[in-house]
Amino acid sequence: MLEERIRNSDLIEKVTSPYEASLIIKNNMTVATSGFTPSGYPKAVPMALAKRIKKSKENFKICLITGASVGDELDGALAKENMIYKRLPYQTQRDCRNGINSGEIQYIDMHLSHVAQYINYGFLGDIDVAIIEAIAITEEGNIIPSTSVGISPTIVSKANKVIIEINTSQPLELEGIHDIYSPEKPPNRKAIPIENVSDRIGTNYIPIDKNKIEAIVITDINDNVRPLAQVNEVSKKMARNLIDFLEEEVKYGRIPKNLLPLQSGVGSVANAVLAGLVDSKFENIQLYTEVIQDSVFDLIDAGKVKIASSTSITPSKEGLDRFYRNIKKYREKIILRPQEISNNPEVIRRLGIIALNTAIEADIYGNINSTNIMGSRMMNGIGGSGDFTRNAYISVFTTESIAKCGNISTIVPMISHSDHSEHDVQVIVTENGIADLRGRSPKERAKIIIENCAHPVYKGMLWDYFNRACKGKNKHVPILLGEALSWHQRFMETGTMKKSIDSYIV
Amino acid sequence: MLEERIRNSDLIEKVTSPYEASLIIKNNMTVATSGFTPSGYPKAVPMALAKRIKKSKENFKICLITGASVGDELDGALAKENMIYKRLPYQTQRDCRNGINSGEIQYIDMHLSHVAQYINYGFLGDIDVAIIEAIAITEEGNIIPSTSVGISPTIVSKANKVIIEINTSQPLELEGIHDIYSPEKPPNRKAIPIENVSDRIGTNYIPIDKNKIEAIVITDINDNVRPLAQVNEVSKKMARNLIDFLEEEVKYGRIPKNLLPLQSGVGSVANAVLAGLVDSKFENIQLYTEVIQDSVFDLIDAGKVKIASSTSITPSKEGLDRFYRNIKKYREKIILRPQEISNNPEVIRRLGIIALNTAIEADIYGNINSTNIMGSRMMNGIGGSGDFTRNAYISVFTTESIAKCGNISTIVPMISHSDHSEHDVQVIVTENGIADLRGRSPKERAKIIIENCAHPVYKGMLWDYFNRACKGKNKHVPILLGEALSWHQRFMETGTMKKSIDSYIV
Repeated sequence: MLEERIRNSDLIEKVTSPYEASLIIKNNMTVATSGFTPSGYPKAVPMALAKRIKKSKENFKICLITGASVGDELDGALAKENMIYKRLPYQTQRDCRNGINSGEIQYIDMHLSHVAQYINYGFLGDIDVAIIEAIAITEEGNIIPSTSVGISPTIVSKANKVIIEINTSQPLELEGIHDIYSPEKPPNRKAIPIENVSDRIGTNYIPIDKNKIEAIVITDINDNVRPLAQVNEVSKKMARNLIDFLEEEVKYGRIPKNLLPLQSGVGSVANAVLAGLVDSKFENIQLYTEVIQDSVFDLIDAGKVKIASSTSITPSKEGLDRFYRNIKKYREKIILRPQEISNNPEVIRRLGIIALNTAIEADIYGNINSTNIMGSRMMNGIGGSGDFTRNAYISVFTTESIAKCGNISTIVPMISHSDHSEHDVQVIVTENGIADLRGRSPKERAKIIIENCAHPVYKGMLWDYFNRACKGKNKHVPILLGEALSWHQRFMETGTMKKSIDSYIV
Repeated sequence: MLEERIRNSDLIEKVTSPYEASLIIKNNMTVATSGFTPSGYPKAVPMALAKRIKKSKENFKICLITGASVGDELDGALAKENMIYKRLPYQTQRDCRNGINSGEIQYIDMHLSHVAQYINYGFLGDIDVAIIEAIAITEEGNIIPSTSVGISPTIVSKANKVIIEINTSQPLELEGIHDIYSPEKPPNRKAIPIENVSDRIGTNYIPIDKNKIEAIVITDINDNVRPLAQVNEVSKKMARNLIDFLEEEVKYGRIPKNLLPLQSGVGSVANAVLAGLVDSKFENIQLYTEVIQDSVFDLIDAGKVKIASSTSITPSKEGLDRFYRNIKKYREKIILRPQEISNNPEVIRRLGIIALNTAIEADIYGNINSTNIMGSRMMNGIGGSGDFTRNAYISVFTTESIAKCGNISTIVPMISHSDHSEHDVQVIVTENGIADLRGRSPKERAKIIIENCAHPVYKGMLWDYFNRACKGKNKHVPILLGEALSWHQRFMETGTMKKSIDSYIV
């Protein structure tokens, strides 16, 4: 058993307990780990570390860098013990989020394609320890990762010390699914040779100088994946609006009849869109994305998928079981790449991706807030949405037009935090309709966003704002500086963006 | 003479007057032209068109698409006659700007790397007529452009009809300076094969189906270039701060000893930085940029330039004379590419560009406004700043810390329009100092931006805002919604951002 998982006999002696491995991590270190949208992250060592510090009551904090979000056993375990002083580049975990919003954790919210190269360029300082979840170590001592690749190739190469968690709950049949390629550093960087989604350009393991491996831990803790986001009626309407739009684009010859490779964020609308594609006339669908969820398996089962490239597989609990049961079939259709490749502007722009992402709020001029509720409460982070949106063939944002039982309009006069500017956003979709912003000036955009996308209860207020703003002196992007953020302020003060509870009812 | 300029004898019969050529352009058409940062744009035909419409008093408007900004003979002539209903993707001309801000012109402010592909994808509708300034037409009927390339290859390929302006004031010695390469449309797009700034990958002419050439006009009107931006003491301080920073980066091994290819915007600070490099220890400097100005000739004369790649040459009047006089020498060091290549994320990221751009204002969290003064008065546009900033190895924004005699602080609690988000901006430089934002959380950024970059007269107000904002409930990006834009509002109402004229003196 162990020999199947650790095929280099010299390395067997590195096997140790999570507690012993955790001793490698010292106060104030920068620790980088595998893991992307809770999958493939280390679990045993972080939990042992948190337990050790809880017991010792040391003042002990680290800077934690991951590929993207990780599960409770890492972000949660450390954040609960107040052991993270700095966190990057993305998170979705409750305790970590609370630490960020309470000011305990300094959080750096980054484009996911930037992370590996920032580390490589030395912009984030030294990586003291890397912890990598793996399914096995090869004869040569190289690492075969599990359900995500993320930044693992970079941190393995840059870290001073490496801890490997062999996770036996992750099947050996994952071997061969990965395609590991690391771009050179400028000025010697070459073209990334992907010209089709299906192109494999690297190795199926992460190369490592095996002398850096300080400890190997054996564990069988499952990825703490998230429940499947329910597809509700509103999501279905948004998905329908979006698929109608794509069908129109095909009709007008602006995209090929089987679309272009899709990138799809996570959550209810993404699931509804992919579910909608199962019943659509589109065939041979390609995905070039950062996360594969349950709906991709549905598409594969329906015979609709040519190839799906990603940096992680993060289905629901049931989806993970389904994946494991049918791994040989699904493996044929899936490639897992480093996030530096899955999210790379070069490849995204070349392949011509249709990018589908979720907004927290949009303003009437087409700017998007993806991260901070009411301008300051961090939700998750920008993730890969900027990498895909800016470089997409077509960039789409979806959002339900209201939130909090109608007390929030997600279409506002001005967004309270900017993640994607008017220069990047092509299409906005809500359950009410679609606003195609391409080739339209700010004022033209405002009219169709208000008319097509806003919720009826807020339309009047938006028209009122816009019409009064248009009376100002400068009419390119009409703005009322004293009112632009007043909707958010009103929500913070009264619990609703509505002006008077009497005059509007959702 | 004519045979040197029009080498295909069949095409000689297409030579006509600017007036006759202007008749090809009808009301409501989409007209796309050559030209980038006023160089290489058509002049005779637009002036003839404006004259014709002025005389006829027709209601006549067009949608005008260019590479970037163009001169008075095009934007000015048409805007003065109120003949532009839509304008994209960039402009710097006074009458055009006034038309945008008065609401007469619908302006779409775009990333310059997006323009050609939006046209190619069909997102901007049909191009009825393209007008291209050229130095000559080859034996095969192909076009040799003049001092810029811009979007010319794309519009020549997509337009229904093409008018060529042979400009005899542009020397024939420009032949060979261009490198014309047009990427395929997805899903068939290949890697752009540039791996060094000096790589030539295309032809030295723009291919055209010569049957599309409807008219050829001969003219000798000079490019209406801008005067050289004066390098003042403040610009010199900013340049010094920036060069010190680059020297530090070299010292710490984060960039190679002769830097990485530079992109530099236009204006006083850009000139001061390049002037500073003349006296620096850096050798074999490479530029991968969108515009070449006088200071590049200084660098070439100093023997400091290995190669300069751009999409336009736009020096001052004196600089243009100097360029023409020494064209054979300068030509060896310069490559002019389509803006789809000069500004391409793929190439910029691969080469590892150091991007230097100018901000109108920055906020304490590192977001940048490049376009709209007080949130709504369009200055020029985003231009290529987004293409370079997002994909740079290091991205830098410069701005003097105050404007309007100290009545505006360019460091504000919240920018009034967002062009570059906190996720993209690495370094901010003012005359007071430098803020290195890499690896820093929003609150950490605020402290160094206020401390290092803000003007002394506004520091106290910024600290006061920030400290009070930090007392709010959500501490990731501390914000006071009711005050965030109040500085701009105060300026609009009182003519100064200062709170009381008595309490602060610049």
